[in-house]
Amino acid sequence: MMPRALKEVIEDLGRLPGVGARTAERYGCFLLKSPSETATSLAGSLINLHERVKFCPKTFALIDTEEELSPLYEDLSRDRSLVMVVEEPLDIIAIENTHSFAGTYHVLGGAISPLDGITPDELHIYELKTRIADDKIKEIIIATGASIEGESTALFLTNFLKEELGDEAPKITRLARGLPIGADLGYTDSMTLTHALEGRQVL
Amino acid sequence: MMPRALKEVIEDLGRLPGVGARTAERYGCFLLKSPSETATSLAGSLINLHERVKFCPKTFALIDTEEELSPLYEDLSRDRSLVMVVEEPLDIIAIENTHSFAGTYHVLGGAISPLDGITPDELHIYELKTRIADDKIKEIIIATGASIEGESTALFLTNFLKEELGDEAPKITRLARGLPIGADLGYTDSMTLTHALEGRQVL
Repeated sequence: MMPRALKEVIEDLGRLPGVGARTAERYGCFLLKSPSETATSLAGSLINLHERVKFCPKTFALIDTEEELSPLYEDLSRDRSLVMVVEEPLDIIAIENTHSFAGTYHVLGGAISPLDGITPDELHIYELKTRIADDKIKEIIIATGASIEGESTALFLTNFLKEELGDEAPKITRLARGLPIGADLGYTDSMTLTHALEGRQVL
Repeated sequence: MMPRALKEVIEDLGRLPGVGARTAERYGCFLLKSPSETATSLAGSLINLHERVKFCPKTFALIDTEEELSPLYEDLSRDRSLVMVVEEPLDIIAIENTHSFAGTYHVLGGAISPLDGITPDELHIYELKTRIADDKIKEIIIATGASIEGESTALFLTNFLKEELGDEAPKITRLARGLPIGADLGYTDSMTLTHALEGRQVL
């Protein structure tokens, strides 16, 4: 019913997250109808993907294989004593898009999740401890997600650094939790409302 | 902020229909986190896609380049005198999944849509006329979509065949329009209700 080559493309596209059989078919047919360059250009980029990307050994951000360190980390105009700790490399892009942060980053590589087999040992937590001394870090902003895993990771990280470093520990802060822009109180979950109430600010 | 190789994958994935920047990022990061085989396997399939797929010169279904004709058309157990006319090659899969049709297919390659520059000349309508004589077609089931374009194409095709062939024209039928399974009358559009009323059947 379907040529083998098309079936293979559809099967492979179906491995992408959230892509069901229908969507994969739609993508496959689109690629077949489009000029062959659309498919071959994607093929070319995919072949390069793993070969040309590596982790920065200092910040664990994703960098080109030719680079030694993350360009954001090497940028002298950025404050190395202020470090934002994120779960994933792409979280950096979200923060950079705000143009509100002039420090550097540290990517944990995930969040603690015993059910998924992710223990603190799997995250780049020890490397962060080393950076505290090397980069004379004054403040660590924990920017893990507002999920249960993100919160547990934030808690674990805070306790770990305070126990390990005692009085030498830098200031540790956490991104504010509260109402997102445009929130309708009637539709806001009670956890968010609790955070918004606890973190209320004097006007 | 992002390695060039990842950016390229994300850009190329963003060309897929309905894939915005966010989704493309999600796909790209998933591919980067997955074993490199996931990306290279997709790359391999994509390179083969256009090279190994062609149109059946008789039915215009998609076939492997090594095949001469569509396997469904060559299957002797299928009735060549009964032909279902569809817009796109993938419509065949939807019909085959019903296991309710034992005839053969003819793919038009689209539907008439003057706004998109698709005129009857662009569709495989003349080839259908040739098949009527060659395959001694007794009935043509028009299975174009229930959209305005699909309906116009059905109307054009019917008039064209009747004018060209006169009394020699085969029986021409159209898939029934009516209420889909599970339809709630209160939420059904009036066009569908009109079709359902006009096509009502004696019990």
